[in-house]
Amino acid sequence: MIIVGELINASRKAVGEAIKQEDHAFIQKLATDQTEAGATYIDVNAGIFVGKEGQYMEWLIKNIKEVTDLPCSVDSPDPKVIEQGLKINGDDVMINSISLEKERLDAILPLIAGTPYKIVALCMDDEKMPETQEERLKIADVLINKLIQNNVKLENIYVDPLVQPISTDKTFGMGFIDSVAAIMTNYPGIHTICGLSNISYGLPERKFLNRNFAVMAIAKGLDGLLIDPLDKKMMSSICAAETLVGRDDFNVKYLKAYRKKKLEV
Amino acid sequence: MIIVGELINASRKAVGEAIKQEDHAFIQKLATDQTEAGATYIDVNAGIFVGKEGQYMEWLIKNIKEVTDLPCSVDSPDPKVIEQGLKINGDDVMINSISLEKERLDAILPLIAGTPYKIVALCMDDEKMPETQEERLKIADVLINKLIQNNVKLENIYVDPLVQPISTDKTFGMGFIDSVAAIMTNYPGIHTICGLSNISYGLPERKFLNRNFAVMAIAKGLDGLLIDPLDKKMMSSICAAETLVGRDDFNVKYLKAYRKKKLEV
Repeated sequence: MIIVGELINASRKAVGEAIKQEDHAFIQKLATDQTEAGATYIDVNAGIFVGKEGQYMEWLIKNIKEVTDLPCSVDSPDPKVIEQGLKINGDDVMINSISLEKERLDAILPLIAGTPYKIVALCMDDEKMPETQEERLKIADVLINKLIQNNVKLENIYVDPLVQPISTDKTFGMGFIDSVAAIMTNYPGIHTICGLSNISYGLPERKFLNRNFAVMAIAKGLDGLLIDPLDKKMMSSICAAETLVGRDDFNVKYLKAYRKKKLEV
Repeated sequence: MIIVGELINASRKAVGEAIKQEDHAFIQKLATDQTEAGATYIDVNAGIFVGKEGQYMEWLIKNIKEVTDLPCSVDSPDPKVIEQGLKINGDDVMINSISLEKERLDAILPLIAGTPYKIVALCMDDEKMPETQEERLKIADVLINKLIQNNVKLENIYVDPLVQPISTDKTFGMGFIDSVAAIMTNYPGIHTICGLSNISYGLPERKFLNRNFAVMAIAKGLDGLLIDPLDKKMMSSICAAETLVGRDDFNVKYLKAYRKKKLEV
């Protein structure tokens, strides 16, 4: 399972403040905490700082790399910022994200063509957010083919079918997880990923809903999540789910988490 | 969702004792507690009392019916006991269970042919417990056809594909939930049900694994569970899962559970 730790995001108030103050200790602690909690990538997002986003992206990555060996996920809608972020990373990096929005696509494709970078591919185009499984799969199809034509390997693509709130439309949950299942079946070797907190928008006990939705999505084949790895209940649910779907030989990871008292049930 | 409350089972020590002492107050409290907790059927099992099972089955049902309007699930491997249990029930009753074991099948089929009883159909024959999805589906297919030929309506059939421990074989979890998905797809209108505690056999934090497995199975279409309805975390997980898969119009049931402080997250 790919766990992208989402905490270093400037839209979180304390993180935004730390960046402005150039408080590298604060940022580095977030990086080491997420590493110890089991993240496999550290997401880096400085998107709120218009004009300075690229400069802060570099500063963040530099500081993160001083304290963890985990690869970063360069997270920006701005291709220029992604380019800047890529410059100070090696080959082992994730790009968050590309989509079918023309401007973004045209600018990012040349940066990633033929590279070994991991690419998050958002099922979204210039017209709208997809709502049905059909709409998601149609966009996914075009996007995956574009990436493959540009020499991105299938196993480096992480499709995000985009979670929408269940409080808006009761079909949005199944629409999402069935899209995950279809993508994993139609493209053997590809990956799927999501940030799932949208699912619970407008409802109480959001974290509870989010982790149950994660468990469902894993049962349908999802193998990537953009989450807070310090959320012990979420991490425990993921650990249980991976055991239950047969991704944990001899239950080794589950038993280890139990023995280390990491399971919060 | 059909929730069959499993607590009135003589193999549970306190229940076995209560039956021997004819402590009807103890049994009736278990019936009302399960009713209040959201059960839709009360399972009744006196299987440990060889020779007296039928007599105790009658006594239990009589006492349960004094305190709850919920229908019973007459739970016995012995066709004679099922027959005795049916005598003191009306049409609204569940039979737990029939299987492809020849002796059981031949004896129970005449009791249920043309009736409106709900039937739990275990995917099991005289040879062995099924282990793969294929084995489960093969047995399910024969069993469903037998029931239909005997004028049992499809919507009264609850197929139990049989949960096996994930600690024995890592494919057993997906084998089960994919069988649920296949049965629900192949026979529109049919139901699936299970007692899922076997999944966690041999592992720590069993209840935690069980409820996460319930959530996965619901995502695959499962609409019946034989569980302890007093397990608040299990009931909360089921409630969340039903909302997330779109079985809860306008999230009414979820919001109600939240407001009544019934969610234990």
